[in-house]
Amino acid sequence: MCQLLGMNANTPTDLVFSFTGFSKRAEEHKDGFGIAFFEDAGVRLFVDAQSAAVSPVAEMVRRYPIHSANVIAHIRKATQGRVALQNTHPFQRELWGRYWAFAHNGDLKGYAPTLHSAFHPVGDTDSERAFCWLMQELAKAHAGVPTIAELTRTLGELVPRIAAHGTFNFMLSNGQALWAHCSTKLHYIVRQHPFRAARLQDEDMSVDFAQVTTPHDRVAVVVTEPLTADEPWVALQPGELKVFVDGSAVV
Amino acid sequence: MCQLLGMNANTPTDLVFSFTGFSKRAEEHKDGFGIAFFEDAGVRLFVDAQSAAVSPVAEMVRRYPIHSANVIAHIRKATQGRVALQNTHPFQRELWGRYWAFAHNGDLKGYAPTLHSAFHPVGDTDSERAFCWLMQELAKAHAGVPTIAELTRTLGELVPRIAAHGTFNFMLSNGQALWAHCSTKLHYIVRQHPFRAARLQDEDMSVDFAQVTTPHDRVAVVVTEPLTADEPWVALQPGELKVFVDGSAVV
Repeated sequence: MCQLLGMNANTPTDLVFSFTGFSKRAEEHKDGFGIAFFEDAGVRLFVDAQSAAVSPVAEMVRRYPIHSANVIAHIRKATQGRVALQNTHPFQRELWGRYWAFAHNGDLKGYAPTLHSAFHPVGDTDSERAFCWLMQELAKAHAGVPTIAELTRTLGELVPRIAAHGTFNFMLSNGQALWAHCSTKLHYIVRQHPFRAARLQDEDMSVDFAQVTTPHDRVAVVVTEPLTADEPWVALQPGELKVFVDGSAVV
Repeated sequence: MCQLLGMNANTPTDLVFSFTGFSKRAEEHKDGFGIAFFEDAGVRLFVDAQSAAVSPVAEMVRRYPIHSANVIAHIRKATQGRVALQNTHPFQRELWGRYWAFAHNGDLKGYAPTLHSAFHPVGDTDSERAFCWLMQELAKAHAGVPTIAELTRTLGELVPRIAAHGTFNFMLSNGQALWAHCSTKLHYIVRQHPFRAARLQDEDMSVDFAQVTTPHDRVAVVVTEPLTADEPWVALQPGELKVFVDGSAVV
């Protein structure tokens, strides 16, 4: 199984602290890693078929504070599809003149959707097939970029049709919002004023968020397993699809 | 104006030497840079809205020898579209289950093609509009991935329709071949056995290719201005579309 990490913030924020802890887990999840940073309408997708523990690309990401309001990261332990760049999450496509990024944790058994439109997998994972099908069905459901509420409603109809095939924890973003779906395991936290200090679970590293934020800042972090030991992470429920906008979970 | 660099090889090859010389030119072309490496069916696109002379991403690319058979790089001096990540070349899309990367040098005046299918620009450059139109028209002309000869023939019909709008030097790759079109300025060289030494024009750096190659290796490098002082670069002719496969220019 893989691990997922996502961030949604009301102010472009760097993910160095969280990614440092998260990439420590790559010693076990060593079949590649990827991270997509949305910046304005653009996206930067860094991927490597090497483990995030040793990849020079991951090392650069840990040292270069890229500021983004929407990030999706993934460390891979291959289940379907061999270890190769084209099988490395997140995957990226363009729809309605916006970039979309998607990463999946889980395993979809015998999942072979009909892909009859403009979205086709390049690699051979169940995950990329699921992403292409979601893009295809979103494109059919809406003529142009819908509101986040409309997108969430459409996703709420589509996602169970994929989730019926197995484990489908995923994160999806178009740079405006972060959608997180839980089949089995996903946790989130919203950090906001008054900020406090936190300590990574996986590495001896702490940060006092009060020192690096303003009272206006708000950041949601979503991850497979909580990254810090001393914060109140919330577990998503199986079957729950949550959307984060401006650093908050939208009801 | 921007500058372009492309590579096509019969064996995955690193581009550290050429990219080092090329990125030196970013002192003048400072509005972002990007480089796409095809690896197997996957692609890695590194972009930064900072100059390649100072970007930590470019620094990583100069130090991490990524082996690829098809590479496209671009350093930007903005003409149309502001300095932003979504306006940074190369651009990337998926068509027929393959990734495509495209970078442009030039300026297309009043170019507003009808984009009625699945490819829409995210940023606001003439270049991304041209790429989306090419993808749309290729998708209409062929039902699945055609042969390189068929693709070249179709591109030969489409490209003049864009080039009529201004300067359209570009490079395009799908990981199987590298297409280079010259409106005003583009040079190439094929390096093959017997290999010799070469010295960068822009930086005090030499390499003896005989030491780092096998007699079987063959590499074509295409660039706006020759990178080395002591090699027989060939200038493409205005209006010429050249395709490189396995390190050779295909007639």
